[in-house]
Amino acid sequence: METISVGGYTVPADRYLASKDNPKIKLYQKLSSLKKERQRYGLFVLEGQRIVKDALDADAVHFIFFTGKAFAEFRENGGDPGSIGEWYIISDDLAERISQTETPQGCFAVCRIPQSVPLLTEGGKYVVLYGLQDPGNMGTVIRTADAFGIDGIILCGSCDLYNPKTVRSTMGSLFRERISVVNDADQLFALLKAQNVQTLAAVIDTDAVKVTEMPHSGTQAVFIGNEGRGLPPETAQRCDMRITIPMQGSINSLNAAMAAGVIMWEMKK
Amino acid sequence: METISVGGYTVPADRYLASKDNPKIKLYQKLSSLKKERQRYGLFVLEGQRIVKDALDADAVHFIFFTGKAFAEFRENGGDPGSIGEWYIISDDLAERISQTETPQGCFAVCRIPQSVPLLTEGGKYVVLYGLQDPGNMGTVIRTADAFGIDGIILCGSCDLYNPKTVRSTMGSLFRERISVVNDADQLFALLKAQNVQTLAAVIDTDAVKVTEMPHSGTQAVFIGNEGRGLPPETAQRCDMRITIPMQGSINSLNAAMAAGVIMWEMKK
Repeated sequence: METISVGGYTVPADRYLASKDNPKIKLYQKLSSLKKERQRYGLFVLEGQRIVKDALDADAVHFIFFTGKAFAEFRENGGDPGSIGEWYIISDDLAERISQTETPQGCFAVCRIPQSVPLLTEGGKYVVLYGLQDPGNMGTVIRTADAFGIDGIILCGSCDLYNPKTVRSTMGSLFRERISVVNDADQLFALLKAQNVQTLAAVIDTDAVKVTEMPHSGTQAVFIGNEGRGLPPETAQRCDMRITIPMQGSINSLNAAMAAGVIMWEMKK
Repeated sequence: METISVGGYTVPADRYLASKDNPKIKLYQKLSSLKKERQRYGLFVLEGQRIVKDALDADAVHFIFFTGKAFAEFRENGGDPGSIGEWYIISDDLAERISQTETPQGCFAVCRIPQSVPLLTEGGKYVVLYGLQDPGNMGTVIRTADAFGIDGIILCGSCDLYNPKTVRSTMGSLFRERISVVNDADQLFALLKAQNVQTLAAVIDTDAVKVTEMPHSGTQAVFIGNEGRGLPPETAQRCDMRITIPMQGSINSLNAAMAAGVIMWEMKK
């Protein structure tokens, strides 16, 4: 078998991809740009040394592309190509082509979308992101949930978790936090009710219960609404309780991610 | 005097600017792009209907440019051009040219940079942003400080508050929050000591005092460090106390703005 040498490592020639028409390269690009392709294949993409490592640790990797330089770095940092399963070396040109960042790190993974059935634990604390639309906000909430030990996140009518922007903004916490999608609100409320979960609507309303005075016992899920519009009133009304963060400044002063952060902090304290 | 009609309003012809070489247009662009020009003139720029209104309410406006459409909207919303002082109508082409947003709202202001002497009140709660470099994070912290009633923010070695990106990300809270700049750390510590301010360093260290257990009495200033590196150890050591947010997940899970948000929340509770 023909071989090539990459960063002092001999690899079979068929591990080296140089054509933009290679089916794996084309798959990566389709998954990167289209939600329907991600759903069709049950796969998504990510890039960057650190998050690829998180994906490997979570056993979520389908295959990896490295540039020669990134492959050498991976090995220098103790990475074992033998443990990855499927990996390929790609040219720097191809890396430029498929990267969505300004300074590509030369490390790209196609990962499996996990099964997303909400698994609620007795006494667990959950966050429902209801109509959240900004990938950056979603990423920040997921990171913060991870930091504060929130037991799971349920997305309902929110932006796509597997959009590369969202994936990037989670900084790897999407592999550490249990995240599920239930887009049908009726189904979600039925599920929460069946499992005896207390539902809390985060609202801007001085008459609602202050987050500092909210109950802490039992299984709870707090609903966070859209960045601009908040929760729809009918959704807030379906919840068992309405909670609010007392504020002094303008009501525009707290963005959705920050509000979610403070509520999660209070929930888990 | 020659007049022109703009949105049903008759304005003197010399209020209409159409040339990209007009000195006021050139001034706007210089202020928009260069910190040294902002410092030289003591002026900065902003754009957008809402934030221009905040600037007018704060009496910070030097002059305003409107497109014809934005001028009509301003008047429809009850705005009185007579109360502004200096304003000009500009062509849509010029608006496109000077705007930094994708969908310009046609409303631009040149504002005065306020005097920035830190004014500390007995018992007040302050935040020092020490080496913060991301305009978006700075804006989020300022908005959140406004929401939680923090008494003032001091910038030390951080990014420029009057960079258009930072201004935009404050969402108007820069006009509601007292913000000052003290770039010399020795001077800052001397000032805080002279006014009997307790200094708290926000650090990632499980041995530090938990934010839930920090003292709340007297005048206090909490130091928040750089996004990636945190506070320099020598700066943390100069503070009276080190405080920390207990975390469960990866230490990368909490970004600087979110950490600052939770600390300000606890400070003002």
